[in-house]
Amino acid sequence: MEKPYVIGIDMGGTGTKFGIVDTKGTILGQGSIATPDYPEINDYIDALYEGLLPLIEEVGGFSQIRGIGIGAPNGNFYKSSIEFAPNLPWKGVIQLGDLLKAKFQLPSAVTNDANAAAIGEMTYGVARGMKNFIIITLGTGVGSGIVINGDLVYGHDGFAGELGHTTIRRTNGRLCGCGKKGCLETYASATGVARTAREIIETSDEKSSLRSLDIDKITSKDVYDAAIAGDSVAAEIFRTTGNILGEAFADFVAFSAPEAIVVFGGLAQAGELIMKPIREGLDNNVLPLWRGKIKVLPSELKASDAAILGAGALGWEAK
Amino acid sequence: MEKPYVIGIDMGGTGTKFGIVDTKGTILGQGSIATPDYPEINDYIDALYEGLLPLIEEVGGFSQIRGIGIGAPNGNFYKSSIEFAPNLPWKGVIQLGDLLKAKFQLPSAVTNDANAAAIGEMTYGVARGMKNFIIITLGTGVGSGIVINGDLVYGHDGFAGELGHTTIRRTNGRLCGCGKKGCLETYASATGVARTAREIIETSDEKSSLRSLDIDKITSKDVYDAAIAGDSVAAEIFRTTGNILGEAFADFVAFSAPEAIVVFGGLAQAGELIMKPIREGLDNNVLPLWRGKIKVLPSELKASDAAILGAGALGWEAK
Repeated sequence: MEKPYVIGIDMGGTGTKFGIVDTKGTILGQGSIATPDYPEINDYIDALYEGLLPLIEEVGGFSQIRGIGIGAPNGNFYKSSIEFAPNLPWKGVIQLGDLLKAKFQLPSAVTNDANAAAIGEMTYGVARGMKNFIIITLGTGVGSGIVINGDLVYGHDGFAGELGHTTIRRTNGRLCGCGKKGCLETYASATGVARTAREIIETSDEKSSLRSLDIDKITSKDVYDAAIAGDSVAAEIFRTTGNILGEAFADFVAFSAPEAIVVFGGLAQAGELIMKPIREGLDNNVLPLWRGKIKVLPSELKASDAAILGAGALGWEAK
Repeated sequence: MEKPYVIGIDMGGTGTKFGIVDTKGTILGQGSIATPDYPEINDYIDALYEGLLPLIEEVGGFSQIRGIGIGAPNGNFYKSSIEFAPNLPWKGVIQLGDLLKAKFQLPSAVTNDANAAAIGEMTYGVARGMKNFIIITLGTGVGSGIVINGDLVYGHDGFAGELGHTTIRRTNGRLCGCGKKGCLETYASATGVARTAREIIETSDEKSSLRSLDIDKITSKDVYDAAIAGDSVAAEIFRTTGNILGEAFADFVAFSAPEAIVVFGGLAQAGELIMKPIREGLDNNVLPLWRGKIKVLPSELKASDAAILGAGALGWEAK
């Protein structure tokens, strides 16, 4: 009989979430650990094991588990490794797949977190049935997963899909954590939005409830709350951020002509406040043949679920 | 017995070249017609038929031909059509595949000209054996063909791979024929290079043999000849154009992490004069993980052969 469950793990810089997933995409049990609590990778693997063990036993033990899929920052599908991840405690190249296999005695597959989210959307989310789409994950950074002809794009080396590091401003671009200037990530990540907020607040005299907040700690949630309450400065922050995303999307469309671009993460929860300026930015910058034709869709999956589900989906084919 | 030959057709705005190709990529016979001589598409198809008939008879007649592949501007693989091609005599949507099938009574497949070149490079050229590469065709326009996991990327609608119309200058960008501003094509096409030449000549006092030419008609060949003779203004034109291409390539790499980018067309014949600044522009703008790792290669196929061979390769699987 086919084994009925997989393990999906969503590794992030602050937290790691994990769950047991069935063939229908139901998460049967889940848990989490704090990634930075384990400066030694072996301790991290042990903690994962201890967190998962009761969940595994609950569904009938290891014999019921087909495999493990894990989405991780800088995860490499080909090599089952994480490599030089700036936001993780472990430096250099970590053979994550081998470590999981050795500890759990289960087939294991590694991909990056945005690719896991793409698989989640394709299998259970808003991209169900789509063969060509792009997911853009807006969080601490800006990640992406690209699906072409129904397959994730990994590229020659397994690192394809770094759309957060395409250059959106070549003149006076903001300095990015990667060392480049003007990366999309410096405008559309959480810190990018906060920086845009600060710039807009400092260069205008307009009244805004945002002025009462600590200007360096403004979150997209703060901006959302203000915009919903009618704050025009907050609306302008979304307009600016959305237009920049739309400009970037126009170039992505010229590359792979996707059916849709799925926007994932906190910012996507602002709904039309961000989707409308994204669509405007896209239509103003895309070739006429695509104008009005590319769907821009907010993710419908809970962020943590999408990544667990997507990573889990990898587990079905893990080796 | 398998039929041993295909017909490859390379349709361009000025000329159409065609040939009979065997399984090894040898072009057994070829000919050409002038595209603009046939304002009626049916006359064009008739002229193709008349041009090809003697070549077909020479290899043993129609029974020896497996199929027809044609690369055409704005060609759509999914629909076997050409759609709203600005540089062709026929307006709107032309059902090119159906017309060829009806006239030749042979299976026929349509793709765009840059995709045909990509198939040519993959099957017979410098990208032999590569599963992930991009070809950039530098001519009157700038086209592209993208190969991922060994397959051409057509996208959701068949129009993927319009990298000439990604935006490389968002501030004071040159107006493109497509209506947008700052497209890569406005800098790296033949007219783009001529325009860069004019700008550099007009804003410097440096001596240059290019000053004796009609400034609006400077070709990449003129610039090449001058650069080879030691003209520093000509070298600067290549440097500027190459750096811009490299900047653009950096974003393409972030998308699909190709093993190589193949540069195709007249400009590629300038060799290291253009390749070196392309590599510099790429390395200065790409994420550290790809620095120095992406091959930038000039095409090794004769331009006309690559397109005939690539279109022909499509013919083997035409329906």
